[in-house]
Amino acid sequence: MLTYTLSDQKEPLYQNLARHIRQDIQAGKLRKTEKLPSKRALARNLGVSTITVENAYGQLMEEGYLYALPKRGYYVSDLTDLEKVNRRAAASEARESVIQKEEEPGEDCFDFSSGRTGTANFPFSVWSKMMREVLSEKENELLRVSPCGGVWDLRSAIADHLASFRGMSVHPGQIVVGAGTEYLYGLLIQLLGHDKIYCVENPGYPKLRKIYESNQAACVLADLDGSGMRIDQLEQAGADVAHISPTHHFPTGIAMPISRRYSLLAWANEKSGRYIIEDDYDSEFRRKRRPLPTLQSIDAGGKVIYLNTFSRSLTSTIRISYMVLPVSLAERFYRELSFYSCTVSTFEQYALAAFIHQGYFERHINRMRLYYKRKRASVLEAFADELKDGRYEIVEHDSGLHFLIRLKTEKSDEEIQRELAEKNIRILSVRDFEMREPKRSSHLFLCNDANLDLEQLPEALRKLNRVLS
Amino acid sequence: MLTYTLSDQKEPLYQNLARHIRQDIQAGKLRKTEKLPSKRALARNLGVSTITVENAYGQLMEEGYLYALPKRGYYVSDLTDLEKVNRRAAASEARESVIQKEEEPGEDCFDFSSGRTGTANFPFSVWSKMMREVLSEKENELLRVSPCGGVWDLRSAIADHLASFRGMSVHPGQIVVGAGTEYLYGLLIQLLGHDKIYCVENPGYPKLRKIYESNQAACVLADLDGSGMRIDQLEQAGADVAHISPTHHFPTGIAMPISRRYSLLAWANEKSGRYIIEDDYDSEFRRKRRPLPTLQSIDAGGKVIYLNTFSRSLTSTIRISYMVLPVSLAERFYRELSFYSCTVSTFEQYALAAFIHQGYFERHINRMRLYYKRKRASVLEAFADELKDGRYEIVEHDSGLHFLIRLKTEKSDEEIQRELAEKNIRILSVRDFEMREPKRSSHLFLCNDANLDLEQLPEALRKLNRVLS
Repeated sequence: MLTYTLSDQKEPLYQNLARHIRQDIQAGKLRKTEKLPSKRALARNLGVSTITVENAYGQLMEEGYLYALPKRGYYVSDLTDLEKVNRRAAASEARESVIQKEEEPGEDCFDFSSGRTGTANFPFSVWSKMMREVLSEKENELLRVSPCGGVWDLRSAIADHLASFRGMSVHPGQIVVGAGTEYLYGLLIQLLGHDKIYCVENPGYPKLRKIYESNQAACVLADLDGSGMRIDQLEQAGADVAHISPTHHFPTGIAMPISRRYSLLAWANEKSGRYIIEDDYDSEFRRKRRPLPTLQSIDAGGKVIYLNTFSRSLTSTIRISYMVLPVSLAERFYRELSFYSCTVSTFEQYALAAFIHQGYFERHINRMRLYYKRKRASVLEAFADELKDGRYEIVEHDSGLHFLIRLKTEKSDEEIQRELAEKNIRILSVRDFEMREPKRSSHLFLCNDANLDLEQLPEALRKLNRVLS
Repeated sequence: MLTYTLSDQKEPLYQNLARHIRQDIQAGKLRKTEKLPSKRALARNLGVSTITVENAYGQLMEEGYLYALPKRGYYVSDLTDLEKVNRRAAASEARESVIQKEEEPGEDCFDFSSGRTGTANFPFSVWSKMMREVLSEKENELLRVSPCGGVWDLRSAIADHLASFRGMSVHPGQIVVGAGTEYLYGLLIQLLGHDKIYCVENPGYPKLRKIYESNQAACVLADLDGSGMRIDQLEQAGADVAHISPTHHFPTGIAMPISRRYSLLAWANEKSGRYIIEDDYDSEFRRKRRPLPTLQSIDAGGKVIYLNTFSRSLTSTIRISYMVLPVSLAERFYRELSFYSCTVSTFEQYALAAFIHQGYFERHINRMRLYYKRKRASVLEAFADELKDGRYEIVEHDSGLHFLIRLKTEKSDEEIQRELAEKNIRILSVRDFEMREPKRSSHLFLCNDANLDLEQLPEALRKLNRVLS
């Protein structure tokens, strides 16, 4: 007779019993076509009610572990493939593998090049206020499913922002909101075609190439000259789509002059199917005067796809990005890809829309610009105080978020990095963003000052000074 | 001499001037190599300060529209490609295209088959409380970038939920959180390979096939028998990956019995590279007893990828889904795809983690189950009241969210739908989910009762009655 110790946990008794029997079947202790005790007999044996056994048997019949023959009783099903699966289990138990909780990388390491956006200035109280407002005022809207391109409120707010901030004339219907630019790149590959050849900047973000390759799209490289992506290389590589960051190239900081912009547009206009992806990721934090006009705003041929993100301008923990499609591509998007649901929760879409509409976003950007300006001054002061003259030169580009340091040294970039790493300091060089061999030592190193710890900076610079001497 | 009316908007004066000059260059009014007036002359002419003109010229030089010759003055740049772009503009102006604000589809139409989840019961006040708690207590955590798989708090909460609710033993490191299952399918294709053959259920969600095809992955179909996906068809199609919803197939409602589950696992174990994607999308709302055990929980060979979503169990406006990867695939995920950022904001991840940890999720599900049960009773009562006996049969599957109606009629499914559409009623038949020809009339129609308007239902049923007679 089956005998189990039924536990009195929060699980109902019949489920507890069913689980014991199920485990015995799975383990092969109860074998196929074996007859089970009658409900009454088992109930008596276990000291439970007949109903409990009946429910347990019922559950197991529904699951397919048992079958009943009228007037005869309950039997174990013939699960022909169970044994195969169990044999497999025994074999694979030998292999042990544990996925550890991922550690925060190098918490105690001073990182000159950390890519994180400074978030200490995120306007928590205002954001909470927006969230509360949205939760109390937008109940009906929140319950409606977001259109695939994003809720209209947010897209209108973005269109207004682009008009006042970037002089761009954009219809909200051209805007597609998504959970991060990486997600939008994936959508773009589906929209433009996996058969297209995508060209990225070299040096540039290695992640971009990974995304294209991971999506099985051909990805080629074009080097930069002083004006940005070289069009001869774009043509030689047979590219269909040029993926660029003309406002502020990362990491070199190049801002593409207007003549190259027109040349790129002319390149795109030469053939149908050619497009330019314009990533305008940190234009908000340009330091001098107004940012350069976007390619999108001087594009008359419907060739430019403009992308930007709030993860950079607000905080990297908010995953809201958007793209502006040329009208013809926007139409194709709604025709071919509108089966996709929007990847951003309506809560956050409405909260961000309110944040922009009520002027908080502009205020936040202005405050951050001032903050980054002051931060830059302090960082440069520390450099001047700690590093010996003639050993370095600051290549100060126009972004408030990072600059380059040219080190005057005989050592290679790798030697510098290795010696600093021994002192628990991390720094990236432009060389690290080159994606083909041979890589040369650039002696240009990246300083993401936006997020540097000013207290630890002098000590880190003294260490750098020792490495240079 | 250049003469402009400078407006006194909030834009600085020099920017206003720069914009006028820029427009003239773009329009070809100022031509290449043309000399501009001296700063002093233009300043006098426009009645502004010399500094204003200097700043405007400086801005335009930076942008590349102007160049300066020492001691001679300012000239319009030779933007060789400007003309080409402008010609293109003139040509494309002829074409006008407007993207309209998408309308909510058929607001006034009674829809028996609307796929939206009932959201009227979403626990707004509790969710707001969680949000407020997170905003005030988790400030530090919110500022940290989420690991690519999601924040640990949420993954632990999900693991606990799966253990208590589904009897699944899952390490949080196996869980990957993403903005919707559709997004996760895209990731899975990248993880398992674009060269794999993916097999979906027929009938089934047409969207699934669209996602595979849009990602350039081969997608084949396997028909169902009474136990779910037919393994002979899976084999004939040469599939590598079987994508199924065994707990509750949509739309037929089939729950896969345990014997077929083992057979599918045996199929997957036969060859390396074979996998099963188990979409467990509405298991929370099974009405009778406990849900069937998941394939994931009886999988010993590391072959099952389990997916579920909170968009269904909480509200469709929240975009949080997750997948549970077998250990070996989880390791591959972190090795190959960890360059992707998590697509869900940390705000919502921590809010959901708290919502689960504090027991609100379980309470919500229990309340919703009761709600759906009562709703079902009312809906069936309306059917009994309004429809003539013998004209219909309710095929009541185990889900609280929808059931099927078998209509006893000579008319084809399409005829029924057309006649109802004329009365402003929408209903889907199982036939609509068949993905290959020839499609037969099933006479089985889908009723998503979870979201039906009980007030309008009797009138809609009377119309249905007239169509049937």
